[in-house]
Amino acid sequence: MCSPEVMARVRASLNRRQMLGIAGTLGALALTPRGVLAQSATPMATPTVSGFSSIVDLTHTLTQEFPVFPGGVQAEITVNTTIAENGFYTNQLNLQEHTGTHMDAPAHFAEGGATADMIPVEQFVAPMAVIDISAKTESDPDSQVTVDDILAWEDANGELPAGAFVAMYSGWESRLSDPASFINLDGDDVQHYPGFDPAAAAFLIEEREIVGIGVDTLSLDYGASQDFGTHITILTAGRYGLEAMANLGTLPASGATIIVGGPKHEAASGGPTRAFALL
Amino acid sequence: MCSPEVMARVRASLNRRQMLGIAGTLGALALTPRGVLAQSATPMATPTVSGFSSIVDLTHTLTQEFPVFPGGVQAEITVNTTIAENGFYTNQLNLQEHTGTHMDAPAHFAEGGATADMIPVEQFVAPMAVIDISAKTESDPDSQVTVDDILAWEDANGELPAGAFVAMYSGWESRLSDPASFINLDGDDVQHYPGFDPAAAAFLIEEREIVGIGVDTLSLDYGASQDFGTHITILTAGRYGLEAMANLGTLPASGATIIVGGPKHEAASGGPTRAFALL
Repeated sequence: MCSPEVMARVRASLNRRQMLGIAGTLGALALTPRGVLAQSATPMATPTVSGFSSIVDLTHTLTQEFPVFPGGVQAEITVNTTIAENGFYTNQLNLQEHTGTHMDAPAHFAEGGATADMIPVEQFVAPMAVIDISAKTESDPDSQVTVDDILAWEDANGELPAGAFVAMYSGWESRLSDPASFINLDGDDVQHYPGFDPAAAAFLIEEREIVGIGVDTLSLDYGASQDFGTHITILTAGRYGLEAMANLGTLPASGATIIVGGPKHEAASGGPTRAFALL
Repeated sequence: MCSPEVMARVRASLNRRQMLGIAGTLGALALTPRGVLAQSATPMATPTVSGFSSIVDLTHTLTQEFPVFPGGVQAEITVNTTIAENGFYTNQLNLQEHTGTHMDAPAHFAEGGATADMIPVEQFVAPMAVIDISAKTESDPDSQVTVDDILAWEDANGELPAGAFVAMYSGWESRLSDPASFINLDGDDVQHYPGFDPAAAAFLIEEREIVGIGVDTLSLDYGASQDFGTHITILTAGRYGLEAMANLGTLPASGATIIVGGPKHEAASGGPTRAFALL
């Protein structure tokens, strides 16, 4: 990408600076000038946005081993250049959109539906409801978030606010260390993991005003679904879904705000998404 | 990915629902049950996070034509499946990490530096300073953000707050409709566009406490740089950069909060990033 002379100069400069002790390792950060680093100081105290005191990452690290929906292809991450050889380090990413923590845009299942790049950004900041079905999931991997679960959440927390993002916490992410158990195929190659009941999805669309739903599993529908009923209900209504979300178990049932850093490539049916909860 | 019978059932269900008028186009959204949609209602009124009234997308749509640093390869977005043929629509993404609006992580130039997936999320919510050098850029494409520009910003807005994200607004994005003029090569294949002066970068690292810097051009360094001086200064100090940012000209010099939806794949030297400003 650059001439050998330029790269030689870059390497010389890097070596000089690294000898001066400002190498960019996180561990070395505490040694940078002024002694105190933003990350260990108080960057959260100064943003003008207020009403929160912590941030939770709702995103898994995407690895080449991260499980994908059966029939799909796992992500490939290939080194393109290295500092030693080229002066800078880069990788090539080759992945299907629906990999890792990711968004399903309406266009994933709706002809003429919005692609991810077209979703108004106002839908990416939303009050977050977390519906915990981990207790029933423990005894039955085919458990679903039902209308009754939503109503029970509302009994405890009040009616879902307009523009809410509704997440299922099933505890399933604890299986990610064993990808096969995350997909959980039976002898007939049917998946078994929790999801949203299509009737609950219809309730959220017809009786409440949501921006989208999210799950900590591979699919908005439960694994054994044969008809993608929840996908169809949510996405053909112009709402989005997030799949393979992380750390939902650390959130309160109500009170968090989700920020959805969704994909923005043209014609996106979805794609890798960086999502945070502000608390 | 699924049996033909399952997909036939999906298509039948989709057709039935679309006939019922709940196709997922944005235009059709106003016709969904309850008449009022979250996106056109007041989703911003209800998040518990407060102190802002609007959200600005700082991200360009990544297209296959989006310009890349000379020598790089443009993004490839290839249709994998379609609703008509497969029941659902998906694409394959093949892209180098430093494509479109994207992050440079410390590891991009610092041996042993943090990869993007390792950066603490607290650094992704930050008070935002926008330094407008568009006036001098108009007459000189080799303009840089200098220490004097930073001090002039501070004269008007007060000292940069701890944990700030400092962005250069040069007006360069108006050239994106003509990718060649965005890269702006001269007869000797040297690029000409604005960036941060390495001395200004050193000032931000040594005299202020920043989380990162951003530009509306292809590089943290100005195009004619021969030594990546600003990249090296920022990244070897463990801070991150954002390149090819959008809509910086719509922001106030001070008062916005940036949310950085950075990439989270393993060993990331950087990658496509969805960034927002809350105002």
